[in-house]
Amino acid sequence: MTDFVRLVEVGPRDGLQNESSIIATADKIALIDRLSQTGLQSIEATSFVSPRWVPQLADAAEVYAGIQRRDGVSYPVLVPNQQGYQRAREVGVTEIAVFTAASEAFNRKNINAGIEESLQRFEPVLAQAASDGVKVRGYVSTVLGCPYQGQVPVADVVRVASRLHAMGCYEISLGDTIGVGTPHHASQMLRAVAQEVPMTALAVHFHDTYGQALANILACLEDGVRVVDAAVAGTGGCPYAKGASGNVASEDVVYLLHGMGMATGVDLQALAATGRWLAALLGRQTGSKVGKALAPA
Amino acid sequence: MTDFVRLVEVGPRDGLQNESSIIATADKIALIDRLSQTGLQSIEATSFVSPRWVPQLADAAEVYAGIQRRDGVSYPVLVPNQQGYQRAREVGVTEIAVFTAASEAFNRKNINAGIEESLQRFEPVLAQAASDGVKVRGYVSTVLGCPYQGQVPVADVVRVASRLHAMGCYEISLGDTIGVGTPHHASQMLRAVAQEVPMTALAVHFHDTYGQALANILACLEDGVRVVDAAVAGTGGCPYAKGASGNVASEDVVYLLHGMGMATGVDLQALAATGRWLAALLGRQTGSKVGKALAPA
Repeated sequence: MTDFVRLVEVGPRDGLQNESSIIATADKIALIDRLSQTGLQSIEATSFVSPRWVPQLADAAEVYAGIQRRDGVSYPVLVPNQQGYQRAREVGVTEIAVFTAASEAFNRKNINAGIEESLQRFEPVLAQAASDGVKVRGYVSTVLGCPYQGQVPVADVVRVASRLHAMGCYEISLGDTIGVGTPHHASQMLRAVAQEVPMTALAVHFHDTYGQALANILACLEDGVRVVDAAVAGTGGCPYAKGASGNVASEDVVYLLHGMGMATGVDLQALAATGRWLAALLGRQTGSKVGKALAPA
Repeated sequence: MTDFVRLVEVGPRDGLQNESSIIATADKIALIDRLSQTGLQSIEATSFVSPRWVPQLADAAEVYAGIQRRDGVSYPVLVPNQQGYQRAREVGVTEIAVFTAASEAFNRKNINAGIEESLQRFEPVLAQAASDGVKVRGYVSTVLGCPYQGQVPVADVVRVASRLHAMGCYEISLGDTIGVGTPHHASQMLRAVAQEVPMTALAVHFHDTYGQALANILACLEDGVRVVDAAVAGTGGCPYAKGASGNVASEDVVYLLHGMGMATGVDLQALAATGRWLAALLGRQTGSKVGKALAPA
């Protein structure tokens, strides 16, 4: 495997939205700018959800307006609905991400709507994005398990992923939201989705709640996936398991990939230093083992 | 893969010997007894090295004498030389472990002898063990990298592993002492050794310094290895990277294996509870992500 893997850095959004320490707007901007200098090509910058839902990201517009946009780097932002889309467009967003759970119970609990209704709610957003020339990434969450219904049928994952792709998402990120998956299960799920959506349009998104993320990524790389979501310093935690680990750490993913002879374009030392800097802001140790191992003595 | 994997729990020895908090003898005994009640079949109990080298394990004889030996569980102990062997035998030890690094530089730095001399030093111990009916496990350390010489030629790993096997070790544990390995490298090394030593006589021993341990274990399971060393609560740290992670956590390995449909005979909840209990004794959080995720709210 000598190949290029694109990392999608989700720390500033998926990571921070689950951190209890509130980070200053200027520090969020500095984080994104530091990340864009490491060679990362995709950095999810923030989320235009209602500030009532996610107070940490209430400054989405200021953050997006403040970052230094580098050529060759994309800065998608999460949008939950048309209002979010409008707020994002007002500050010049050119790529968004939308999301639906593959679990019927998770959708009902979180957005009071089933899978089908959730998809329908995004239809006008995707239509508007298409007419505005805005790229759309799609997230499917709870692909390997759900905190409410437990098992999630693979057929449901395939259905939601296919629909988002058909609705115009250029890439579908398959997320193990609660980090319960193991390699064979992850591989089986990915291969099933790849029957309906081209592997080149798929990404994997693992949380490290049970420490399985890198093993799952390895299995999915062997199946051919070449886009991996990760968060610097392993930020995020898990709302369903207090004290648990968050997103897989970007540093650990880059170390894995480089060790396997795969290219990422990322400067690992610079990334690890950024992770330690972020952890210090959050008042805790970095969640990246590579970040700890590479720390100056 | 529906198969049985034997875990070799090395927390009481490899884990504790690199922990700075000194644990009371009674607590070490309680740890081993708790571990033997989880269904583990192999628990490395302690080390009969000189107390000057490893003060944490100065109570080796008391610990070994104090544990409740369960039927079907083996309790190997590390011995560095003939004196250690004698001390171990005086308290009734029936299985020992010996060790040599695959790195010439590591051997010279640590025991002031090259690989060849190191192997020769163990010859009388192995001869005595054979005549006493004592089983011997062999460790090869630095199999994927060395803090002094950097790269370690695979041929050196093969040579040391083959020699230990030929000298009478029933099982050879291949150790990534500084945790730098990645899956393809691990797999390549394991396959090379398996050309000379039967796969059924091989074990893998990963440290999680760079977070790669579970991914490496996955790769080695796919190659056919069925014995995995691990330490409850991920104890151990790394003497060559201050603040870094230690041995791969047994809980995380068991979660991986069970998730892949493999049997271990281990009660994961009981193991995770033991890991949290040990971490509390050490005055820190458990190093097992599974241990954290399964903690009562």
